[in-house]
Amino acid sequence: MASGKILVAQGGGPTAVINQSLVGVVLEARRHLGIRRVYGAHHGVRGIVNEDFVDLTQETSGNLEGVAATPAAALGSTRDKPDLAYCQEMFKVLRAHEIEHFFNIGGNDSSDTVRIVAEEAARAGYALRCMHIPKTIDNDLVLNDHTPGFPSAARFVAQAFAGANLDNAALPGVYVAVVMGRHAGFLTAASALGRKYPDDGPHLIYLPERSFEVDKFLADVKIVYERLGRCVVAVSEGIHDAGGQPILAQLAKVLERDAHGNVQLSGSGALADLLCEQIKDKLGIKRVRGDTFGYLQRSFLGCVSDVDQREAREVGEKAVQFALWGQVNGSVAIKRSGQYAVNYELLPLQAVAGKTRTMEDELIAASGTDVTEAFHRYLRPLLGSGLPDAFRLRPNPVPKVLGR
Amino acid sequence: MASGKILVAQGGGPTAVINQSLVGVVLEARRHLGIRRVYGAHHGVRGIVNEDFVDLTQETSGNLEGVAATPAAALGSTRDKPDLAYCQEMFKVLRAHEIEHFFNIGGNDSSDTVRIVAEEAARAGYALRCMHIPKTIDNDLVLNDHTPGFPSAARFVAQAFAGANLDNAALPGVYVAVVMGRHAGFLTAASALGRKYPDDGPHLIYLPERSFEVDKFLADVKIVYERLGRCVVAVSEGIHDAGGQPILAQLAKVLERDAHGNVQLSGSGALADLLCEQIKDKLGIKRVRGDTFGYLQRSFLGCVSDVDQREAREVGEKAVQFALWGQVNGSVAIKRSGQYAVNYELLPLQAVAGKTRTMEDELIAASGTDVTEAFHRYLRPLLGSGLPDAFRLRPNPVPKVLGR
Repeated sequence: MASGKILVAQGGGPTAVINQSLVGVVLEARRHLGIRRVYGAHHGVRGIVNEDFVDLTQETSGNLEGVAATPAAALGSTRDKPDLAYCQEMFKVLRAHEIEHFFNIGGNDSSDTVRIVAEEAARAGYALRCMHIPKTIDNDLVLNDHTPGFPSAARFVAQAFAGANLDNAALPGVYVAVVMGRHAGFLTAASALGRKYPDDGPHLIYLPERSFEVDKFLADVKIVYERLGRCVVAVSEGIHDAGGQPILAQLAKVLERDAHGNVQLSGSGALADLLCEQIKDKLGIKRVRGDTFGYLQRSFLGCVSDVDQREAREVGEKAVQFALWGQVNGSVAIKRSGQYAVNYELLPLQAVAGKTRTMEDELIAASGTDVTEAFHRYLRPLLGSGLPDAFRLRPNPVPKVLGR
Repeated sequence: MASGKILVAQGGGPTAVINQSLVGVVLEARRHLGIRRVYGAHHGVRGIVNEDFVDLTQETSGNLEGVAATPAAALGSTRDKPDLAYCQEMFKVLRAHEIEHFFNIGGNDSSDTVRIVAEEAARAGYALRCMHIPKTIDNDLVLNDHTPGFPSAARFVAQAFAGANLDNAALPGVYVAVVMGRHAGFLTAASALGRKYPDDGPHLIYLPERSFEVDKFLADVKIVYERLGRCVVAVSEGIHDAGGQPILAQLAKVLERDAHGNVQLSGSGALADLLCEQIKDKLGIKRVRGDTFGYLQRSFLGCVSDVDQREAREVGEKAVQFALWGQVNGSVAIKRSGQYAVNYELLPLQAVAGKTRTMEDELIAASGTDVTEAFHRYLRPLLGSGLPDAFRLRPNPVPKVLGR
């Protein structure tokens, strides 16, 4: 006899809307007569191995809606990357609790975990439906137009650069800000959407899809600074040289050679600081400031795309619908329709699991330091409604009297 | 015959609402028949010395309202700190352009500039009304309940910590974020307003009003981490030891001794990174992350207190009213009335100029690492309406089956 029990878990880096997907699963599942219990795993796959579950059937709709609108992972997340043995332990627990459907919200690694657990269940002849629900601010899942979590983080980055550009115009100098995204540059590229006027920054955008040379970078900054008297730069944390070596490691080595000692550079502000040092030292520019957006870009309470919220909710809902009516395993994917609507499809787990998408060539400008119109057209609808706008005074110069 | 010309300038670090004050001056001045021209100085006092003015009489109300809602300084700002000779040059230009009223929006230094220019005008027997309009995210002007710009920056800090706390709860570890404020801890203290549930972070708050000892800091973090399995820390960039030496310099020296070289540490992420290194090395905690809020906290487009917007507009309006109807020099100050309304008073320039307010003892908890109820009561109304709220799931544990 069917237990009517399902389990949902969250994995990897939190986002502004991952709880929408959680609540989408819970509320949709609670509508179905066949589902009698909705469990959640504390801290993702680790909570499964540890049998650390909460009963989400006993949670008010009001509180669930509050949680949905709250960033980060309400169930707790984990960085554990399960191997086969780990997944076998997970399966033991799922079977012991008579779980019939397993929903895992996460990125590449989470989809791979779902794939392995599904294979274990199939091998054991146990009827377990396994669904991967997409989530990542990196936007690096293949076969998805985009992933929930990315639009809200992109909105934060665009608004942050819009403000930083204004600050830099008020007190001119060079400003370098480092954005998350080790392999995919989508989030760094979102900085371009913060521009309004023709001379607004970011004036230079460095993505991990292109190799980075410090000398070229300095030359780029010099040209902008000489033209505008200021320069705003967006840099992905994942920038690397032509050989694939991270720039952080390369610059760190320079420092080590200078100091003949063991300088620790793993702190998160290091890359921005090192690039600023290069600009000060090599270009002789005085006012050079570096920021690292850090955890704010994925967790800030109060900067979210309503489109992202809606879609994150829907991928959770669709996962339950696919599982119950389709009775197959898979990964829910977002497909774009026109400009702008979306459809949801169920992909085979192996089509998504463990694969990494990076920015397509047509989204990156030929210069390698900007995005194309196609990227603007791609990203703008995802940022949602009510984006704040920036205004400047129009020039009405007053003739000089002393004229010195 | 009266020229009917007034001049307005912006100085120091930009804020989210400094343009409200600018527009308050411009729109209020344009209502008065006696005022025929409203000039703005590009990049503050430097623009005055350079006769670099724009005519704000020729600017549409619609664009002015757009500018008012835009962060940073629309006229441009400056870090120049005028001495007597500089102020004398400024006065020469003001006289040459027949300026009758000079409005300077800024902090301590800006008020001192206004004072010196006013004295120069008086000495020359030239009828110049000089007004200082308060602005600073540091909230460090004496005789003001608070200063425009601070509430919006405080709101950013509170929302940032609310999100960072959720992120840290989802992926536990130690999180250290460095907040602006070299001498006054108000902005760092605002992190406390990001808490909702009893165990929410920031769990520790370090202010420049109290001396900082690295060993005590590590012991504090250890206690919280052992109790909760995680710890969120707010640190002012201005923390210093009992002798007044900045902690950044102290920790940098430790690194220098280790490395026998010249490690550059002036980059803005350095303090957070160094504190994180201490926690990793001395407490053996693995997941330790540091952020520096940097320029986002004062320039982010889309995080503003509506109370701050309104008051910043009003101090600009009041400055014009005081100047025209009072015919005296002075500094506009915000006084609190009840919980919560404000009145505006005109203070003598010398009462405010060049003085620095720090947090009053009754706002700081006896532990030295938290704020008091009085601080919550002080700050909450300033943050404005529509603050986002954070929700968490209520505990409904599922009994274990395998029970390992």
